[in-house]
Amino acid sequence: MTDLDNLRVVLVATRNPLNIGAAARAMSNFGVRRLRVVNPYDAAFREARSAVGASGLLAKAEQYDGIAEAVADCKLVVGTTVAGPRRDLQHPLHRLEDGVRAIKRQLKTGPVALLFGSERYGLSNQDLSHCQWVMRIPTREEHGSMNLGQAVAVCLYEVVRGRKTAPPKTARGREKKTPAKSREIERLTQHLFQVLDASGYVKPRAAAATEENLRRMIRRMQLDAEDTVMWLGILRQIAWKLRTSGND
Amino acid sequence: MTDLDNLRVVLVATRNPLNIGAAARAMSNFGVRRLRVVNPYDAAFREARSAVGASGLLAKAEQYDGIAEAVADCKLVVGTTVAGPRRDLQHPLHRLEDGVRAIKRQLKTGPVALLFGSERYGLSNQDLSHCQWVMRIPTREEHGSMNLGQAVAVCLYEVVRGRKTAPPKTARGREKKTPAKSREIERLTQHLFQVLDASGYVKPRAAAATEENLRRMIRRMQLDAEDTVMWLGILRQIAWKLRTSGND
Repeated sequence: MTDLDNLRVVLVATRNPLNIGAAARAMSNFGVRRLRVVNPYDAAFREARSAVGASGLLAKAEQYDGIAEAVADCKLVVGTTVAGPRRDLQHPLHRLEDGVRAIKRQLKTGPVALLFGSERYGLSNQDLSHCQWVMRIPTREEHGSMNLGQAVAVCLYEVVRGRKTAPPKTARGREKKTPAKSREIERLTQHLFQVLDASGYVKPRAAAATEENLRRMIRRMQLDAEDTVMWLGILRQIAWKLRTSGND
Repeated sequence: MTDLDNLRVVLVATRNPLNIGAAARAMSNFGVRRLRVVNPYDAAFREARSAVGASGLLAKAEQYDGIAEAVADCKLVVGTTVAGPRRDLQHPLHRLEDGVRAIKRQLKTGPVALLFGSERYGLSNQDLSHCQWVMRIPTREEHGSMNLGQAVAVCLYEVVRGRKTAPPKTARGREKKTPAKSREIERLTQHLFQVLDASGYVKPRAAAATEENLRRMIRRMQLDAEDTVMWLGILRQIAWKLRTSGND
């Protein structure tokens, strides 16, 4: 049982089965399992449930005739909206990140409902009358609506954002976390200088300045130990080729 | 002109026209206008463009045959992935919020590309070899894929999140002044590959893998424009020497 098990995503009057499925998918991605649908078009809900790949989450979704019943067990009920002129809004409006901070505190102690309106009209003032307050997704005002699945994804991302998740193990999915030792970096510098000397890149009178430039440039690369070994191999091969070509 | 005009969303090998449309819609919601598609199924791209309600953004989307061309003008190229076992990942992996912080700094000075892979397979290691690093959307590991439109929405939300309230970043430490453009970095990669080929470093049967390794290594160096010019000069000189030595 995690805090997220206290979160209920409530879809109000959703018309498109694809959007119900998309909302369910976003929930699954972010580890939120309790889906409730209020007064959906019946056919839409049936179709979403029977869709190939519908998650168990969708099969367990609960259907309600009204918002009051759907949020009856919740201590906090929050509506969502997008940017745009909505002068009729009667509720306190919070930025998404601020609202989610309050939601996360409540999730520690009991159920919280997060409401999403229909694709076309969003949540009506009547719908919102069940909410304590409203969160606004920071979309452009000129673009007045948002895809339902995307709205759910963005809100749930904000909820899980900043959680500690174990970094996946990857072959080299690494920060440069084993910095090369100075000794190796200097060896690399010397190899590069020698290759460049053999190539005629180093002008005799500017040799010291060139060496200094190379030394700085190589240190700016902030190579890790592994890449340093690769570079050394590269330079050795070039040096060898330059030597043997000259002897042809 | 805002910083967001420097952001290019690049969809790689997208198969489903609905997903191209959904990505475009998320972009419009968050005020990002430059869409590039690489090697989409032609029919999918045509269908997405002709869909009712397709935004002007979609009409202006640019189509490319390869990632190199699609990101040629970009100073920073970032791949995206979701959680889940991906032990073959060869790149530094950042949390979405940390990665976006770095992206926002770069957006002030020039174009940045954000890559999204196909619905089914995400970005391949070959696709990622064009990237400096990768950002991970913090989904549950058990749910290994994410809807493309939702992934774009979540990433772009993170980019606009907190706008207007974010304190201006002050320069700190040694920032690399002018990051090199991808076109230059790719040119450098090709020069290095040619020099190594001429030196016998590249084994014919492993040529593609070697090229991929070099591409990744060079991107890890995060060269600035000036150092890139210096490296190009170095490689040209070595290449010249290798050619002329052979003719002695």
